[in-house]
Amino acid sequence: MNTKQALKIYKDYIEKIKAFILVMETTSFDKMTIAPEKGSDYRNKMLSIINGELYELETAKEYVDAILYLSSQDLGEVMNREMTLAKKSLEEQLKFSKEEIMEYSFVQMDCMDKWQKAKLANDYSLFEKPLLNLIDLTKKRINKRNPKAKPYDVLLDDFEEGMDQKKYDEFFKLIKTELLPLIKKVNKKKDYIDDSFLYKYYPADKQAEFSKKVMEFINFDPSWGYLGLTEHPFTSGFSRNDVRVTTHYYEHNLAAAIFSVIHECGHAYYEHQIDPKFDKNLYIKRMSSGMHESQSRFFENYLARNEDFFTLLYPELQKLFPENLKDISLEQFIRAINKAECSLIRTEADELTYPIHIMIRYELEKDIFAGKIDLKDLDKEWNKKYKKYLGIDVPSDKEGILQDIHWSQAYFGYFPTYALGSAIGAQIYRQMRKDLNVDEHLRKGKFKVITDYLKKNIQRYAALYNFEQILNKATGEPFNPKYYIDYLKDKYTKLYDLK
Amino acid sequence: MNTKQALKIYKDYIEKIKAFILVMETTSFDKMTIAPEKGSDYRNKMLSIINGELYELETAKEYVDAILYLSSQDLGEVMNREMTLAKKSLEEQLKFSKEEIMEYSFVQMDCMDKWQKAKLANDYSLFEKPLLNLIDLTKKRINKRNPKAKPYDVLLDDFEEGMDQKKYDEFFKLIKTELLPLIKKVNKKKDYIDDSFLYKYYPADKQAEFSKKVMEFINFDPSWGYLGLTEHPFTSGFSRNDVRVTTHYYEHNLAAAIFSVIHECGHAYYEHQIDPKFDKNLYIKRMSSGMHESQSRFFENYLARNEDFFTLLYPELQKLFPENLKDISLEQFIRAINKAECSLIRTEADELTYPIHIMIRYELEKDIFAGKIDLKDLDKEWNKKYKKYLGIDVPSDKEGILQDIHWSQAYFGYFPTYALGSAIGAQIYRQMRKDLNVDEHLRKGKFKVITDYLKKNIQRYAALYNFEQILNKATGEPFNPKYYIDYLKDKYTKLYDLK
Repeated sequence: MNTKQALKIYKDYIEKIKAFILVMETTSFDKMTIAPEKGSDYRNKMLSIINGELYELETAKEYVDAILYLSSQDLGEVMNREMTLAKKSLEEQLKFSKEEIMEYSFVQMDCMDKWQKAKLANDYSLFEKPLLNLIDLTKKRINKRNPKAKPYDVLLDDFEEGMDQKKYDEFFKLIKTELLPLIKKVNKKKDYIDDSFLYKYYPADKQAEFSKKVMEFINFDPSWGYLGLTEHPFTSGFSRNDVRVTTHYYEHNLAAAIFSVIHECGHAYYEHQIDPKFDKNLYIKRMSSGMHESQSRFFENYLARNEDFFTLLYPELQKLFPENLKDISLEQFIRAINKAECSLIRTEADELTYPIHIMIRYELEKDIFAGKIDLKDLDKEWNKKYKKYLGIDVPSDKEGILQDIHWSQAYFGYFPTYALGSAIGAQIYRQMRKDLNVDEHLRKGKFKVITDYLKKNIQRYAALYNFEQILNKATGEPFNPKYYIDYLKDKYTKLYDLK
Repeated sequence: MNTKQALKIYKDYIEKIKAFILVMETTSFDKMTIAPEKGSDYRNKMLSIINGELYELETAKEYVDAILYLSSQDLGEVMNREMTLAKKSLEEQLKFSKEEIMEYSFVQMDCMDKWQKAKLANDYSLFEKPLLNLIDLTKKRINKRNPKAKPYDVLLDDFEEGMDQKKYDEFFKLIKTELLPLIKKVNKKKDYIDDSFLYKYYPADKQAEFSKKVMEFINFDPSWGYLGLTEHPFTSGFSRNDVRVTTHYYEHNLAAAIFSVIHECGHAYYEHQIDPKFDKNLYIKRMSSGMHESQSRFFENYLARNEDFFTLLYPELQKLFPENLKDISLEQFIRAINKAECSLIRTEADELTYPIHIMIRYELEKDIFAGKIDLKDLDKEWNKKYKKYLGIDVPSDKEGILQDIHWSQAYFGYFPTYALGSAIGAQIYRQMRKDLNVDEHLRKGKFKVITDYLKKNIQRYAALYNFEQILNKATGEPFNPKYYIDYLKDKYTKLYDLK
């Protein structure tokens, strides 16, 4: 085999692999958004068959040989990285049989269905068995993939290359030491900020109208983006010019959907703004979770929880809900959407307490995969942690262990990237403020200046580099969570007029 | 090879083939409903690759051998029919190469995109070239498949097994001779029925609310059915328990969406009520177009354009639109939705003039595939026929040749099944009225009695029999279009008080 032949084989295969991925992602998106429930079993079974066919492609001898050959060649920066990632993915695939891949994919999808039912019924007992089964299966898979490593380290690296428990322990230690005392102080001034108006009645159709205005403001264009509805908001990038986000309208919570839409649009931009030259690649387009979350948190928190972001938008919001907002000033609105409070639901948490929600999940996952927890008590352990760190009682499963979809997807090791992403975002934000007059561009509605900046400094790279390398390029220094802590301390000390 | 081995191979292959079909259908449904436009090229290319992979499965040697072997065995009624259909489908596939299949699928999808753009722009010139190219490609394909047959006969048989120009000529001759004079008479009493209130302002969201009521009435259950929005309404059956219908709300046309929803639900029931024992089959589940249309027309016309159907529903409709309907009686409403008028748009046509719209398309298609038409004048020919048969001028492309999606899908030979289906429906309706007190069941909202009847006598068979055999079973006699003509003559003579 020579390089030209190997590249030809590689190119032919990834075209097919991408076609499989597109139809599978579309079918999954359909499943998660609109598909009738009774079709689930058939759909899951058919998708697992397609997964099996995809496995055949991904492990076909000539494709494997081509990747192994190309990995040993110097093909330039882009293709070298592509081959590193391809080889890593391949080595893991080869540890499993087609039947195992098909079974796992069926179990995963079935588990999501069961989570959905359990959450609707607000009854963890309907989800416990499928969840524990999925955990067991995941443990077995990790052991097959890498019997020598600490199991949870394998999972953490899956979602953010290079991260492990040692690094995350350090990161969460900082969060615990620095933020818990601040949260306590803020908690003492519980009624300092009035946000009651956010929980009046806001009809879903009018919220949807405002979502449109928000999307116009951030130039999320319907010709390449789509907004749908789901229980649990998410983003799915089918191609650079086909990015789907979803949200959920709560009629007694104005902020939830606004910030979930902005959050998901942050993810969407990352998918949209990848360098088109990577269109002929596959693995390099799979961005890491932490970097991805840094972009969504960037939109949601660093940009949108500010007066400048809402200068043009807030009057529109008032127009839609005059009865609730006509006497609320922009300043009051901004204070309300930044109110910090120990609460139950992660996705609706403020910036300050958010990382504590993540830390709780991180500690639980660590214990699960170290075998340090009696899995029969998982829901009770969840509730204990909420009491311990946030001082609150969990009144129901759907506000407790059933609130997130991710465990049902077997996304163990994924949650920590949510806090990591917030910290990465803070570091990028600090740099952007040095380079751009962010506030003025927001006030004037020049959002493109900001997305262009993110494209140039972050998003176009996709997974060409790992998150630390991208941060180094974008900010001139390695990852430093101190900026995140400083940002939160500064913001909340001022907001709550603390000493 | 023995029967057991062959059946095992057959079973393994159709499981995979069905999985491919499900993800392709889902991706197509997504494309036609919500997918962002700029992702089209990539999506079409990927879908054509999947089509190529499906072709590899469908023409794999062991599968082909199994089908050929099984076709020569006596496997009982069901499997004999399955193998007849499988062999027919196989023989056609084998006439083409993988590359041809992939190219054709890409061209087809691309043509749909171009139709959509042209229709939006109301400009046939944007669609002319892709359409003529598709016609040319279709001609070449027919010639490859069956060089000896009359080209249009091949297409007609594709959509309704056993039908050809000779039979359709006879059928449309009857329509022409019997209905055109009646239409003329009705036309002279243009203002006899007032339907102006149907064209007042009816906001889309309230129409959507009424659609829900209609679907409840006919037990179209969200656990197995879904209603979406498209420019051109259609139904897609992913599995027995996952059937999708779409509609389009026109804010100045109340009847359009109501009857399109009911129509598509008729199709949906056919998909939903197939005998579950066919779940292990593939080809037998592909119902013919005429039979399918007989079920949708059955719902839309024979059932829904009656006072009895609206006895419970009309008060709900009045409640939603009191300003437009409070002074309109049920009787007036029913007269209005049955008003016959020579009009431009097929999908909104009344029962009486509807078959003329189909006849126009039939004549055009016949001429296209006999080479009797200068394709450069296709739009002008369209307009001429509307003038000739319905006496109206076509003021714009979107109300003329661009109105239907089907040519862009290469569904040539499909339109005639719409009129055929109406006639089949009339024959079934006549029989059902002998067997059931249809009117009373409708008045009392006992729609299940009706759908159970259709299930038992028609729908459960899927494609186990052809349409003439099913009609024979259900009505005790062969297809007889006279019942259709009689029904229309009787109905419109009474409605317009003609002599």
